[in-house]
Amino acid sequence: MITVAVDCMGGDHGPQVTVPAALEFQARLPDVEVVLVGLRDAIEAQFSGTRPRVRVHAASEVVTMDEPPPQALRFKKDSSMRVAVNLVKSGEAHACVSAGNTGALMAISRFVLKTLPGIDRPAIATVLPNMRRTNTYVLDLGANVDCTAEHLLQFGIMGAMLVAAVEHKERPTVGLLNIGAEDIKGNETVKQAAELLRGSGLNFVGNVEGDDIYKGTVDVVVCDGFVGNVALKASEGVAHMMATTLREEFSRNPLTRMAALLAMPVLRAFRTRLDPRRYNGASLLGLKGIVIKSHGSADVYAFGQALETAVQEVRNNVPQRIAERMGQLHPQPVQ
Amino acid sequence: MITVAVDCMGGDHGPQVTVPAALEFQARLPDVEVVLVGLRDAIEAQFSGTRPRVRVHAASEVVTMDEPPPQALRFKKDSSMRVAVNLVKSGEAHACVSAGNTGALMAISRFVLKTLPGIDRPAIATVLPNMRRTNTYVLDLGANVDCTAEHLLQFGIMGAMLVAAVEHKERPTVGLLNIGAEDIKGNETVKQAAELLRGSGLNFVGNVEGDDIYKGTVDVVVCDGFVGNVALKASEGVAHMMATTLREEFSRNPLTRMAALLAMPVLRAFRTRLDPRRYNGASLLGLKGIVIKSHGSADVYAFGQALETAVQEVRNNVPQRIAERMGQLHPQPVQ
Repeated sequence: MITVAVDCMGGDHGPQVTVPAALEFQARLPDVEVVLVGLRDAIEAQFSGTRPRVRVHAASEVVTMDEPPPQALRFKKDSSMRVAVNLVKSGEAHACVSAGNTGALMAISRFVLKTLPGIDRPAIATVLPNMRRTNTYVLDLGANVDCTAEHLLQFGIMGAMLVAAVEHKERPTVGLLNIGAEDIKGNETVKQAAELLRGSGLNFVGNVEGDDIYKGTVDVVVCDGFVGNVALKASEGVAHMMATTLREEFSRNPLTRMAALLAMPVLRAFRTRLDPRRYNGASLLGLKGIVIKSHGSADVYAFGQALETAVQEVRNNVPQRIAERMGQLHPQPVQ
Repeated sequence: MITVAVDCMGGDHGPQVTVPAALEFQARLPDVEVVLVGLRDAIEAQFSGTRPRVRVHAASEVVTMDEPPPQALRFKKDSSMRVAVNLVKSGEAHACVSAGNTGALMAISRFVLKTLPGIDRPAIATVLPNMRRTNTYVLDLGANVDCTAEHLLQFGIMGAMLVAAVEHKERPTVGLLNIGAEDIKGNETVKQAAELLRGSGLNFVGNVEGDDIYKGTVDVVVCDGFVGNVALKASEGVAHMMATTLREEFSRNPLTRMAALLAMPVLRAFRTRLDPRRYNGASLLGLKGIVIKSHGSADVYAFGQALETAVQEVRNNVPQRIAERMGQLHPQPVQ
């Protein structure tokens, strides 16, 4: 039995999305049990008809979306987010999922669960689609705005172990995000990181560029959180602009609307293939426990995908895989 | 009369693209004269029928696309690129355009033309489309991988002056690319840059995020060259993936191909609105002269757009506008 603690209060829609998604998820997977964490009334208000067979774990506070992380960490000890993470720490849950404030979730997870030996800082990793129809994993996406070469090496290891575990690839390829494929490109940190990655025993292929994320050149793209966050949001911006422009052009006049009707199955297939909701669920990697961050605007389907990500990481022992690999890199001295 | 020096040897296609584009451009604009710079034989091989009335300025060497910039600068003094920039320096041309090696073009331009007073480093600026159907100017796109706050301030000033000049906007809005709208976000350099921009007298609106580029939130987006380059290439990657996916879905079977036929005018309008070739022509800003970089893969239409960008900057005195604004920021002591 796999138990997933769900922070029901997080996200733009709160229990309205998280509770139905969690119930649906539990109903679908016989070996998964969810624990609904949050304000009892708000959660139970979402139960329609007979009370479902589900555990509710009350928490009296809520971390708001724009709350400064240190404040959430220090003063909201009974928040749904904190309590959900506590359940992972105590072993009552195998993983937790939240659509809440990213900074607060990172601060709380790091404080409660601690990082794995050898990991200085956790990173946020997500999956993105690519033209080869495989998955590209990118990290960090915003947890760390100032990174050293050593941090980037650790991100590479964590990303590779995540892909090895959940995609069952023995030696995932790792690329370092840079502004040119040549070794001489980039700033000093990136050049040093390339050296470290080259000596790490990972399947490091060298520098990759922004478009390689979507070409599917490598399994894992490593970057600092500032660059990763900007790249991700710029990508979202372009995708949104293109989708909107396409919609505008198809609804321009009766003739184009007719064309849209005829092209509907094609447009639907197109949308499905690139649906960002499918890729919902970013991993907070490098912690002694599994924490998944859902997009704040997730709907029931998207939040379900984040729950799925959590279960995949539990089934494949992601934190253990990372810990083992870190142990090989820095063997502990024998006493 | 406006004279534009064209480095005919640069780019993936060389004279095959640059020569027809330049001839077409000159034929279209009665007050513009082009000077074709490069290997005389290679250029003249592109003249079909009667020899066109055009100036050819011979240059005996070619900077290759993957040549290290210091080498191009030191050893290729008679390259088409160097000679084209020299023509701007000597006043024989008002601007030059090259589709060649970006690093070499920047190194040569900086060495030959020098930077404007108060500008430490030139930056590469380009125009991107947005959902408001206006233009978003982004800089730097790769010339500077390690920037100080002062450099970012200078980019803001250069970008604002470019927009003021070519878009005839009196007070263009300027945003600083960051990973959140709040002041507390980002690394130290970005936080300091925000302070400097706030005190600069520019119409600075604060932090913007990656998706704001395509939302059209501000006229000018300021970032360091590493971040800007990754954001631009990630955007290109997504756009390419989406266009390819759409094409794949429309050519899946006879039925979808029929739908494509009916949707053709719509798909064509969609493609035209977001055609990246329309936005070809990045400005090397901050120099004592106008230098425009075309995409290496530009076709005749795209290269023509880069020539158009050059002429716009000449007509609107972009370097002078930047120099004047820098003079206001750091008034020279009166002797």
